[in-house]
Amino acid sequence: MDAVVISPARRSPSADLLALLQRRFEERLSTSQAVLLQHGTDESAYAPQPPDAVVFVQSTDEVAFVVRACARERVPVIGFGVGSSVEGHLLAVQGGVCIDFSRMNRVLAIRGGDLTATVEAGVTRGQLNAALADSGFFFSVDPGADASIGGMVATAASGTNTVRYGTMRDNLVNLTVVTADGEVVRTATQARKSSAGYNLTQLYCGSEGTLGLITEATVRLHPHPEAHAAAVVHFPSVRAAVDVVIEAIQLGVPLARAEMLDALTIRAVNAHSRTTLAEQPTLFLEFGASKAQIDEQAELVREIVAGHGGGAFQWALRQEERSRLWTPRHHAYFACLQLRAGCRSLTTDACVPLSALAQCIDETQADIAEHGLLAPVFGHVGDGNFHCLVLVDPDDAAQNAAAEAFSHRLVQRALRHGGTSTGEHGVGLHKMQYLVEEHGAQAVGLMRAIKRALDPHDIFNPGKVVGHAAV
Amino acid sequence: MDAVVISPARRSPSADLLALLQRRFEERLSTSQAVLLQHGTDESAYAPQPPDAVVFVQSTDEVAFVVRACARERVPVIGFGVGSSVEGHLLAVQGGVCIDFSRMNRVLAIRGGDLTATVEAGVTRGQLNAALADSGFFFSVDPGADASIGGMVATAASGTNTVRYGTMRDNLVNLTVVTADGEVVRTATQARKSSAGYNLTQLYCGSEGTLGLITEATVRLHPHPEAHAAAVVHFPSVRAAVDVVIEAIQLGVPLARAEMLDALTIRAVNAHSRTTLAEQPTLFLEFGASKAQIDEQAELVREIVAGHGGGAFQWALRQEERSRLWTPRHHAYFACLQLRAGCRSLTTDACVPLSALAQCIDETQADIAEHGLLAPVFGHVGDGNFHCLVLVDPDDAAQNAAAEAFSHRLVQRALRHGGTSTGEHGVGLHKMQYLVEEHGAQAVGLMRAIKRALDPHDIFNPGKVVGHAAV
Repeated sequence: MDAVVISPARRSPSADLLALLQRRFEERLSTSQAVLLQHGTDESAYAPQPPDAVVFVQSTDEVAFVVRACARERVPVIGFGVGSSVEGHLLAVQGGVCIDFSRMNRVLAIRGGDLTATVEAGVTRGQLNAALADSGFFFSVDPGADASIGGMVATAASGTNTVRYGTMRDNLVNLTVVTADGEVVRTATQARKSSAGYNLTQLYCGSEGTLGLITEATVRLHPHPEAHAAAVVHFPSVRAAVDVVIEAIQLGVPLARAEMLDALTIRAVNAHSRTTLAEQPTLFLEFGASKAQIDEQAELVREIVAGHGGGAFQWALRQEERSRLWTPRHHAYFACLQLRAGCRSLTTDACVPLSALAQCIDETQADIAEHGLLAPVFGHVGDGNFHCLVLVDPDDAAQNAAAEAFSHRLVQRALRHGGTSTGEHGVGLHKMQYLVEEHGAQAVGLMRAIKRALDPHDIFNPGKVVGHAAV
Repeated sequence: MDAVVISPARRSPSADLLALLQRRFEERLSTSQAVLLQHGTDESAYAPQPPDAVVFVQSTDEVAFVVRACARERVPVIGFGVGSSVEGHLLAVQGGVCIDFSRMNRVLAIRGGDLTATVEAGVTRGQLNAALADSGFFFSVDPGADASIGGMVATAASGTNTVRYGTMRDNLVNLTVVTADGEVVRTATQARKSSAGYNLTQLYCGSEGTLGLITEATVRLHPHPEAHAAAVVHFPSVRAAVDVVIEAIQLGVPLARAEMLDALTIRAVNAHSRTTLAEQPTLFLEFGASKAQIDEQAELVREIVAGHGGGAFQWALRQEERSRLWTPRHHAYFACLQLRAGCRSLTTDACVPLSALAQCIDETQADIAEHGLLAPVFGHVGDGNFHCLVLVDPDDAAQNAAAEAFSHRLVQRALRHGGTSTGEHGVGLHKMQYLVEEHGAQAVGLMRAIKRALDPHDIFNPGKVVGHAAV
């Protein structure tokens, strides 16, 4: 997968445009090879595709200035948060100007009375939660990486907390967006809900920088539960582990997190974190409530676990113990990478209806075995979402091709089970090929009509998601 | 408000088109005056605007047939659920064909394992919950009226349960939609979340029939809590009642419902329901959890109530007692209508950030007093959403004008407090005038670009929401 799928003609900025940007941004405009390379590289397996220039913006008005300048020449504009996307989202396949949001990192408002905060797009979830430290509230969405909020909105990110607190989509109040005309739009008011017109907030969320550039976001906050408890439980099968989570959800247990790691992932984390967990399908659970409620929830889950042949619980109540107990899960990605020296990972992202999850993972593990792949599996079970890290030697073309073929079969399998080609990573370049199969040509046609209506000259992150021209 | 705001040229179906529909639908096509009048009347104060014909469809394919037939002549197509909308949504201001969904009332699937159900658009929330009676699950969205699910999606409805379970928007998995080409599109798979392309589900939700016709919806289900408890508490002020709810939410108490009725509303319900509630601002609360958790939550709320000068709780635990205790709230609308014989109500719908709610209601009550209006106030406090029923003699032009002027000031006040012109009723005809003020001309321009992209010939419920041509 070293070659980029789409490589139409490059639309690079003219010398005049670069000079204009230079005058306005001075040392905050960069065309150094190192900076360009960094901004043309994400966590996908694609080869880097650097932009022609990078602007380190400090305000919405500066973003609007760049967009207006680029729009005149129809030069692509690509947003960049921290570069943690995994499907080729930020590669400058047609060249253009990259807008780096890392200096738009101010937390603009924390409103405890409204349970909201407004941040600039470059604020990371870690920065926001640090700013919230003494507020009694937290921002829930946790995709693993310390991604920027703008990037998380753009990909409709989610993660381990979603089973309890919802996805990025569920935690948005409004966005500030720069349009293709270089105008600044706020998509909604500060009210928690509204029926006033088409929902632009949800349209931009998940649009991956192809309809406009998100410069600010107002997000929902949640109060910290009175107490937390964490537990680790082993199971004889993936199905047993998955069924426990589904049954708990059906009974209304408000699990704070419910992560399943397969036996191979446990082997990897044991090696990496020097733990001695049984190498079996394992649930990492977290409860957050009052102490009495946690006892009640845990008792209920213990009964469900016993009914599915699960093992004894390892418990942790205090913060340090909980961190220690969850360390293997938090390090799972890096632990898995070390299963094979010098390898890299093709990270997949399938999401299916809950009732199909166990079957879909079973079939996926059979596929892994059949094709002799090294591919740990773990997932956000309560959402029906799971990932495989297919470990490959980056220089071995056959291994890369086998991983790509596996990814293809996994998408087909997820679609067959009524699921989606991506639960949380987004489309980028890599999943474009599946959109028609997933949604049908008519639905993709509607999406493309929206793209053409809001970005007529195809300047926003061109060549991604649904593209611009006819398929 | 008897005159309709927008009355462009009528685009009535030709005799050929009516004959075509007649051949296909036989007695399910109606042009009788009584049927037309019923389908051109909603719960707003607008005079009826009947369509030219009504088709009682039985399938998505039939909807597609009607749309294709009407599209050829650019004849408007207007969806009709149960006619409970309140802002003129369904008035046939340009004539056209009304599609009545009441015979598309099949519950197509209940998937306990996925916590979802798929219904035809004409299924009402009451019908769905009846079908779920033995499942252990329920559909949460409750706007008061027994609205159709399709209509609730179209207006992004919410209601008393939203504080706990979210709006219609939060409870959608996917939609089946008929497009302007008469094609059938499913907006998403059955997965609980997805990042695969632009979110068509959330675009159609709240589009009020102006972008396409929703024919099926997959919605989320929730498990019934183990137990419920209801409580009624009186307060010295609206502010005290509102602050109690906000503080409870800030402390993470998962209130199932939290409704505030002002003193005048209590006077109305006392007269209507023969209750003897103190004529003070009053909270109707509902808890849903395990018995032990309810005790814990109630204890916490009791402390908060005491801190704000609230009175003693009246409690109800058993189903019949709870129903009895909540009767005044459920009958509030009809009770208020009886405050003045022969009156009708202009029902407003403002929603502001939680922290501004008490102030906004205070100012609204001062406005009501200053202008000598009879206007009970009640609201979904946990969402920042409240309604005033302005009671007027339908034949008194001055009263009607005064009510309309009040509604105008209320919208201005909500916007000034960072809120929205409609929290849950939708735009219809009545709130169109505020969209630019609320969102800005640029944002409304984006909405209109979307309308033109998805409905180029303006056949879907024309003249509503953002319209089609330039402002």
